[in-house]
Amino acid sequence: MASPFTTTRRVEFGETDMAGIVHFSNFFRYMEAAETDFLRARGLSVSWEQDGRRYGFPRVAAACDYASPARFGDLLTVAVAVEKIGRKSVSYRYEFSRDGLALATGRMTAVYCQADESHKMISLEIPPDLRAKLES
Amino acid sequence: MASPFTTTRRVEFGETDMAGIVHFSNFFRYMEAAETDFLRARGLSVSWEQDGRRYGFPRVAAACDYASPARFGDLLTVAVAVEKIGRKSVSYRYEFSRDGLALATGRMTAVYCQADESHKMISLEIPPDLRAKLES
Amino acid sequence: MASPFTTTRRVEFGETDMAGIVHFSNFFRYMEAAETDFLRARGLSVSWEQDGRRYGFPRVAAACDYASPARFGDLLTVAVAVEKIGRKSVSYRYEFSRDGLALATGRMTAVYCQADESHKMISLEIPPDLRAKLES
Amino acid sequence: MASPFTTTRRVEFGETDMAGIVHFSNFFRYMEAAETDFLRARGLSVSWEQDGRRYGFPRVAAACDYASPARFGDLLTVAVAVEKIGRKSVSYRYEFSRDGLALATGRMTAVYCQADESHKMISLEIPPDLRAKLES
Repeated sequence: MASPFTTTRRVEFGETDMAGIVHFSNFFRYMEAAETDFLRARGLSVSWEQDGRRYGFPRVAAACDYASPARFGDLLTVAVAVEKIGRKSVSYRYEFSRDGLALATGRMTAVYCQADESHKMISLEIPPDLRAKLES
Repeated sequence: MASPFTTTRRVEFGETDMAGIVHFSNFFRYMEAAETDFLRARGLSVSWEQDGRRYGFPRVAAACDYASPARFGDLLTVAVAVEKIGRKSVSYRYEFSRDGLALATGRMTAVYCQADESHKMISLEIPPDLRAKLES
Repeated sequence: MASPFTTTRRVEFGETDMAGIVHFSNFFRYMEAAETDFLRARGLSVSWEQDGRRYGFPRVAAACDYASPARFGDLLTVAVAVEKIGRKSVSYRYEFSRDGLALATGRMTAVYCQADESHKMISLEIPPDLRAKLES
Repeated sequence: MASPFTTTRRVEFGETDMAGIVHFSNFFRYMEAAETDFLRARGLSVSWEQDGRRYGFPRVAAACDYASPARFGDLLTVAVAVEKIGRKSVSYRYEFSRDGLALATGRMTAVYCQADESHKMISLEIPPDLRAKLES
């Protein structure tokens, strides 16, 4: 859809495991941070308050395929692209690389939600202004 | 393939996020812990030394679909089933539930590897005795 | 004060770092989980709702001294003792060991709080019934 | 000793807990990342290889006092100062703030070590050139 948004991230020591590489679960944290950067660049967030209510984009699906390991100190490039905007959800694709070498490809689907009185998340149709920002 | 192996896990406070639910990335840690339990029950591990060499099952793919949130204090049931054993890899399916309510379904594929001199992981054919234990 | 409460914990693969040992930050997660177990055994929690209000024990101080590393698969014993109960706070000491070998000693101080309307935590005097349970 | 080194860090969604604030354990990860930045600025690291051997600065003590919570999206300033350089160890103090408001104060002591054949860490005297860089 839109051309990819790119952010970078330095691998921290505490993100490695005893195999000497980034623990696979941390790529999901990296995706979320890249999604947050992507949204912030559009004046959006993964969680915010408006008129006394809380809105957000909880995830309903996440996946990652690993091609090559990342290591402590690596400067990762994370390209974020919106793959699809549905009626209530948005799907992202993430390409991780280091110096041009592809490391991993991730996908996440988040649903636009409002928290009700008891903090339960209720999915909503993505309003036109929000959709326009996601597509920009 | 085999009938599912079941383990349980109590959700910790530090595994929740500001939405009041388990952060989605932690389900991947839960999968790994359940995989470890599954392997331990077969006398195996996700990482071990044998004859001075290190072996293990690094992941090449991981995915999770979230149906309902888990919260602090929840006692989760995690059913682990081997979906497929390939020449060099094993694929697991994980079913997360709480009191019979389905919460999430995960999948992971791990490749049988040996670390070489410089700690690089080299994929290997799964030997018959290891395969037999995974299938048991 | 009271004789120590003891719980156990198996080290997970994802809790190790590239030095092949448990990442030091995870001992703080272990302390919290042990504190939760300690409180649960007394019918308490680190976070709960009562009469529509949220209560909890946010930490104001945490420390750990490391004597010997823990590794993947280790079964850790965590002894929790209440060191001091102040007017509004409780201080714990944690002794980590494996097969009788001391690994680390931790300390945490938590303050009894109620969340106000805007989710801000307000410290309160520990009521007598809560104090009695902590001392038991 | 030296004037403080300063780095910044944006709080991620996954670093919060159900109390709506940064989970206390993450401040220890923040300290390590700030230590890494401090060391990198001096051409050093928390873990490196030299002449086929691995060196590093494993922690023997870590502590944090929390004054005010940090929240999702906060831009934290972390000031790192070397408090003391011993014969084999270095002690850091970390001051966390947001827009000039003090949030937390941390301390960590790391020991200069070399890994032996079996990956066990052996403490060593800090050599003069390393000491000079830490003091700079």
